[in-house]
Amino acid sequence: MSLTAETLWKLLSAVRERQPLVHNITNFVVMNNTANALLALGASPAMVHSSDEVEDFVAISQALVINIGTLYSEQIAACKLAAIKAKAAGVPWILDPVGAGATPYRRAAAAALAGLGPNVIRGNASEILALALERGQGKGVDSTQGSDAALEAARHLAVRARATVAITGAVDYVTDGQRVIAIDNGHPLMARVTGLGCSATAVIGAFLAVEQDALTATAAALAVFGTAGELAAAEATGPGTLQVTLLDQLYGLNEQLLAKTSRWQIITCS
Amino acid sequence: MSLTAETLWKLLSAVRERQPLVHNITNFVVMNNTANALLALGASPAMVHSSDEVEDFVAISQALVINIGTLYSEQIAACKLAAIKAKAAGVPWILDPVGAGATPYRRAAAAALAGLGPNVIRGNASEILALALERGQGKGVDSTQGSDAALEAARHLAVRARATVAITGAVDYVTDGQRVIAIDNGHPLMARVTGLGCSATAVIGAFLAVEQDALTATAAALAVFGTAGELAAAEATGPGTLQVTLLDQLYGLNEQLLAKTSRWQIITCS
Amino acid sequence: MSLTAETLWKLLSAVRERQPLVHNITNFVVMNNTANALLALGASPAMVHSSDEVEDFVAISQALVINIGTLYSEQIAACKLAAIKAKAAGVPWILDPVGAGATPYRRAAAAALAGLGPNVIRGNASEILALALERGQGKGVDSTQGSDAALEAARHLAVRARATVAITGAVDYVTDGQRVIAIDNGHPLMARVTGLGCSATAVIGAFLAVEQDALTATAAALAVFGTAGELAAAEATGPGTLQVTLLDQLYGLNEQLLAKTSRWQIITCS
Repeated sequence: MSLTAETLWKLLSAVRERQPLVHNITNFVVMNNTANALLALGASPAMVHSSDEVEDFVAISQALVINIGTLYSEQIAACKLAAIKAKAAGVPWILDPVGAGATPYRRAAAAALAGLGPNVIRGNASEILALALERGQGKGVDSTQGSDAALEAARHLAVRARATVAITGAVDYVTDGQRVIAIDNGHPLMARVTGLGCSATAVIGAFLAVEQDALTATAAALAVFGTAGELAAAEATGPGTLQVTLLDQLYGLNEQLLAKTSRWQIITCS
Repeated sequence: MSLTAETLWKLLSAVRERQPLVHNITNFVVMNNTANALLALGASPAMVHSSDEVEDFVAISQALVINIGTLYSEQIAACKLAAIKAKAAGVPWILDPVGAGATPYRRAAAAALAGLGPNVIRGNASEILALALERGQGKGVDSTQGSDAALEAARHLAVRARATVAITGAVDYVTDGQRVIAIDNGHPLMARVTGLGCSATAVIGAFLAVEQDALTATAAALAVFGTAGELAAAEATGPGTLQVTLLDQLYGLNEQLLAKTSRWQIITCS
Repeated sequence: MSLTAETLWKLLSAVRERQPLVHNITNFVVMNNTANALLALGASPAMVHSSDEVEDFVAISQALVINIGTLYSEQIAACKLAAIKAKAAGVPWILDPVGAGATPYRRAAAAALAGLGPNVIRGNASEILALALERGQGKGVDSTQGSDAALEAARHLAVRARATVAITGAVDYVTDGQRVIAIDNGHPLMARVTGLGCSATAVIGAFLAVEQDALTATAAALAVFGTAGELAAAEATGPGTLQVTLLDQLYGLNEQLLAKTSRWQIITCS
């Protein structure tokens, strides 16, 4: 499926109708917001972490989201079990390598998970550069680079990991190594709310559950999420109200709002 | 104490006056919201999980809430220690068997805890069916059944576990195996906010701290929580604002609002 | 630097300009809110807990916040590693001894961390009394004492721990053992939102990153946070909206609002 205004609406409607079960192994900072973003979108989230049950849970899910924000050794083990099971069971999965460049431990964990065949990898510019170049980057979990600075690295990473790679920032880029789509939604205030990148990753997970082409699913999810964020920022009086209003906007998005507000561009189609 | 409009107000007032310390061993998704729901209600919440201190903490608490949402082995051990101590010390406790039917691991943990003598068990229809029938049910942590479909199973479970059992859904049912009370408050939008079932469980915990009859405490708590949710949904523009407004409503509930909005029915009184 | 109306604005502006990386090892209840408070203020928060990486992360941070709210053994170990590293690397750090008086386990952990040289310790009156007097205090994580009742204990603790000690409550007191500053901002409704004390601790962390004098940094941070809370309470309709509006106010604070609303008094200057 190629990306058109109709595709966005079609995929969002599919999420709302099918209510896919999205299994999240994610960080403690954003669990509540991620679950709420998925519920507001129309999906059915579950946060399940124990090595004792992640494989069973992946098997009944329509997508898997792995986010290494608040990493610890038991969780890395659970993430690996879940990723391997997802691959074996044909469940699409997405990796969010939070703060991948901040410490050697985090870099190693992100690289190991990227090697287990994620369908999509989403990060900010510093995270994608750290993963692509295998070296330290960024300031903690925040990016020190614009998203465009990581685009070439993202294309290389996409080829090496055989994955769709998304860099989010002022402009979001999505690439499978050859094709590149740029999405120009969102608002600078979104960077002042914790974990909206993590929520974007989870929303991509929901779209992967209803669309096989990972590039299309990822770009559509980011356009939908960015549109909701942009509409929310227009109403918000600060980051507190933005976080709340974003959920209302995800819930209320309709075909007209999407057609009017979403902006993207297919840059390369080689 | 039997359930009347006056009982609701009397018990809510008792929570506000006595500010019972409610010990929660709960999941990472809802900790913040659960603590805030208890504070808005007038109780004094604490989230304490380590096996090194749960027994000491139960001993100073007026009620204990155990919720298995984001289960892992150390937490199951801590839950068991806490439940056994609560029983020995006469501290009432409530079990929330989140996603009990989703995996064998979760089913086993829920069954083991249900065997330790909870005063109340609260779940959605799929969770209560899974626990009563000892088999898989539901879609992840969401119910695939209406609450009425689980009523007979709830009555059996109540007898077997010697507990009050609550099934929440479009209509909430509370039973001790013989008596059944149906509460008809709430709003469909509440299902689009994560963890409101968990908050309802915690509110029941607070009511158990001020009312010995578990059936009355549970039904009153669900009527209060459902009333607050219903009033909040009338103001909300989506699930984001609902989550916030619900806390304001719990905080602001008064006798008149409760009398006007709460709706329940004693179905069986054999 | 001594505390004046200009100091408040100067330090807040310094946080916004330098965006210090603040490393938090904190509890699961407040992680999201703490991160959002720091982002709204203008700092760059990270929540990093694993013993495998806390030392590396401290080394790249401008301040460290340690909060024992939802304590467990691995986390105590990580906190100790991080505190020792912070001391060695000259990174200022603050201890929040949540519920220090509630259980022997919690008391021992708080005392051990207080012995590792925090620049600042912030708690409610019961927590500071428990830490100073080395005995049980409080009701769970809530205080049973007014902040003034703990002032003498705070002065002794400050001398013994060679730290600045802050007691927050209706009035906040900050002391280095000799000097005492009282801050009279905030609103009673703030006690009905979970973790605002933890957020205050994190905000102090951000101010420690831009101001070497711990007494000044701590008092300024509490005046800024209390001012934002007071302005938010004036708009809020309950604890739900207060939590959201507080973030908007932290984000929007300007020199005029600070000058007009902040209230503090230097009580002792011996």
